[in-house]
Amino acid sequence: MHKNTYMPISSSISVESNLEIGGCDLAKLAAQYGTPLYIIDEETLRENCRSYLQAFAENYPSALAVYASKAMSVAGVLKIICEEGLGLDVASGGELYIALKSGADPQKIIFHGNNKSPRELAEALEAGVGLIVLDNPQELRNLEELAGRAQKKAAVLVRVTPGIEAHTHDFVKTGGFDSKFGMHIERVCDFLEEVKRCRNIDFRGLHAHIGSQILEVNPFAFTVEKLAELIEKIQKRNRLSVEILNLGGGLGISYTERETPPAVGDYVRAVCQELKYNLGKRKLPQPALIVEPGRSIVGRAGVTLYTVGAVKENLNIRKYLFVDGGMSDNPRPMLYGAKYSADIVSKITAKKSELVTVAGKFCESSDILLKDVHLPPAQAGDLLAVYGTGAYNYAMSSNYNQAPRPAMALVGAGQSKILVRRETYEDLLKNQEL
Amino acid sequence: MHKNTYMPISSSISVESNLEIGGCDLAKLAAQYGTPLYIIDEETLRENCRSYLQAFAENYPSALAVYASKAMSVAGVLKIICEEGLGLDVASGGELYIALKSGADPQKIIFHGNNKSPRELAEALEAGVGLIVLDNPQELRNLEELAGRAQKKAAVLVRVTPGIEAHTHDFVKTGGFDSKFGMHIERVCDFLEEVKRCRNIDFRGLHAHIGSQILEVNPFAFTVEKLAELIEKIQKRNRLSVEILNLGGGLGISYTERETPPAVGDYVRAVCQELKYNLGKRKLPQPALIVEPGRSIVGRAGVTLYTVGAVKENLNIRKYLFVDGGMSDNPRPMLYGAKYSADIVSKITAKKSELVTVAGKFCESSDILLKDVHLPPAQAGDLLAVYGTGAYNYAMSSNYNQAPRPAMALVGAGQSKILVRRETYEDLLKNQEL
Repeated sequence: MHKNTYMPISSSISVESNLEIGGCDLAKLAAQYGTPLYIIDEETLRENCRSYLQAFAENYPSALAVYASKAMSVAGVLKIICEEGLGLDVASGGELYIALKSGADPQKIIFHGNNKSPRELAEALEAGVGLIVLDNPQELRNLEELAGRAQKKAAVLVRVTPGIEAHTHDFVKTGGFDSKFGMHIERVCDFLEEVKRCRNIDFRGLHAHIGSQILEVNPFAFTVEKLAELIEKIQKRNRLSVEILNLGGGLGISYTERETPPAVGDYVRAVCQELKYNLGKRKLPQPALIVEPGRSIVGRAGVTLYTVGAVKENLNIRKYLFVDGGMSDNPRPMLYGAKYSADIVSKITAKKSELVTVAGKFCESSDILLKDVHLPPAQAGDLLAVYGTGAYNYAMSSNYNQAPRPAMALVGAGQSKILVRRETYEDLLKNQEL
Repeated sequence: MHKNTYMPISSSISVESNLEIGGCDLAKLAAQYGTPLYIIDEETLRENCRSYLQAFAENYPSALAVYASKAMSVAGVLKIICEEGLGLDVASGGELYIALKSGADPQKIIFHGNNKSPRELAEALEAGVGLIVLDNPQELRNLEELAGRAQKKAAVLVRVTPGIEAHTHDFVKTGGFDSKFGMHIERVCDFLEEVKRCRNIDFRGLHAHIGSQILEVNPFAFTVEKLAELIEKIQKRNRLSVEILNLGGGLGISYTERETPPAVGDYVRAVCQELKYNLGKRKLPQPALIVEPGRSIVGRAGVTLYTVGAVKENLNIRKYLFVDGGMSDNPRPMLYGAKYSADIVSKITAKKSELVTVAGKFCESSDILLKDVHLPPAQAGDLLAVYGTGAYNYAMSSNYNQAPRPAMALVGAGQSKILVRRETYEDLLKNQEL
């Protein structure tokens, strides 16, 4: 079987000639757990974590890889990631709650967000998270007050908007980048004077995040250069040392054959070399380095399994495959025009001879999962596996049309176990007053 | 106070000079229930239902208005709508479950969807819903078998794709309209021969739905003309009479001052006149008429109340108001570029002198609720009311960033009560295996 870069590492063909992941035949998983079903491949998940750890060991030992849990905040997945040695980045009180319940070391948790509520800041202080990433002056005032009240000193990074915006193959450099996140790079030094005046705030360094699903190394290299300049300026102007530099996340993955992102090792090596070069040039000490991968940890590990309910020819215009999920379990095609790849589970080696559009079951004409893709001829009852659904699928899922959200199963070494139970009709009403 | 068409009917100013809805001061609601909070105005909800009932009484007595519960499927809201005498349209087994729990008369429930599962069809038969709207030949075969097994006769409408696609101010007429829904108008007669051969299927009529947020009457009138032609063709070719004609929904509402949809009465009158004219011309009997309004029933009744967490100037580029909700409680700006209108609760009569962008708190740069709107100067702690959020907000809400979903309160006659309880951190983990 030809194994594409969007398929989980453990993908193979079962003795029954079906697609198999983690040694589990997908037809058997569907029979056992029902569909739609999120499947997570433990091998891909662990391998992705290790690729970051190994690359940093070789290129920049004082670095920490921190998983951006917004991509998928599932306790069973967080446990594995923490076992591998990564930290966790959380973007809300809810994500912090799940990280803590997963047994994560609070010192390796980084708290993010452009509008953390006072309650969330208090929860972060109470939990003793390692770093809070400050977004704006209002938040600085809130945190100073809350930390004082809690008699704690809050270790912070300051989020910087570096004037580089990257997404997939495009990136722009602009002096006046418009973002809701962070402090404009020209205002950071003034802001740090405010930070210095706060008795309960401990400035530790900088954070920047330039975008998502980035498929080349250059935008990261430009960011590193800009940040090295800023570190020098801060040393001179604020007389503060930047002990930690957090470059955020953003490394892309293959969703189809068209995307060819750099390997994790190549990305890490390039970023570390660029950083060391730029620091060396300015005779600056090397800060500890943090990166926050999300998609490149969990994206490829995830597959969504659907059952085809009907095949419908639309009078020579288009052939539709209707599946039993759609926009509520994966809103990314609607939100971003995201592309995916798929296979029919029982026809994994068959010729992809038909041009079809895979539509979801939701009462919304734009509920289309895959437009104009080639698949073997399919029929009602076939199982469809959509690849690369580990990131921002479960995380962004809804109950639109009162669809119970799917179950999630972890697979590995021929075993499977449920990480998330399928919602029931009763769950839909649980918070409603009848 | 100037009352815009996007504000709930009962909007006024409280004795404390705050925005008041249903006789409830919004500052008090925020103190009692917290924010973000969905607020539903009972008066607007009932008034919208009555406008349909009255218009049909005057123009087409054998008509039924059926609420499209996908717009918001909340038991407390469905109860009110059923009390007013409307039926319910459901798009899934989950919506059917909630409709039944709300005490709806099954005979006034219409079951929709392009890919109803055999389980859902069985649930619809078991509940004894009034009509099932058939989408495709596969579904016909499934329903025939399931109805036979249940020893029931399934009353059906056949969904037709009439070749008219409408949205807001645009509509197109095309012979080959590409939609995942329904049977192409040129194929309906052939399909009806298949329907006739089914012993457990009782053909009752046709259904068509041409789009959403439609702001003019013409596309509906064109649809009626096309369907009258089809009814005549069916009478001749299939020797079947169309007893029920279901025109779907799609009437738009004002989200800002820019949208000026026809009043419900004008829309109903125009559609009924056009239908009667086209039927009379062809000497066809008048079928019972069904329309399925969703947005025009609940949209204006809903307001979302947020707390401003920070105001942030982005170096002369843009001034941001950060609120404590965003894309998880209202994904429509991200999904459709949807526009909304808003007020600061305590500054309802103040001059809207500042150009601001209202951003949510989610870790996603496109999490922007209102871009470039004018508001009075605001500060952290102010309450922001966003209008017109009754439809497709709660219905499409997610737990992105593990945000607990907001509570929903019904207001009227100075009283408030909770229809949906706020989710807790514990709720987020309820289906996860730890």
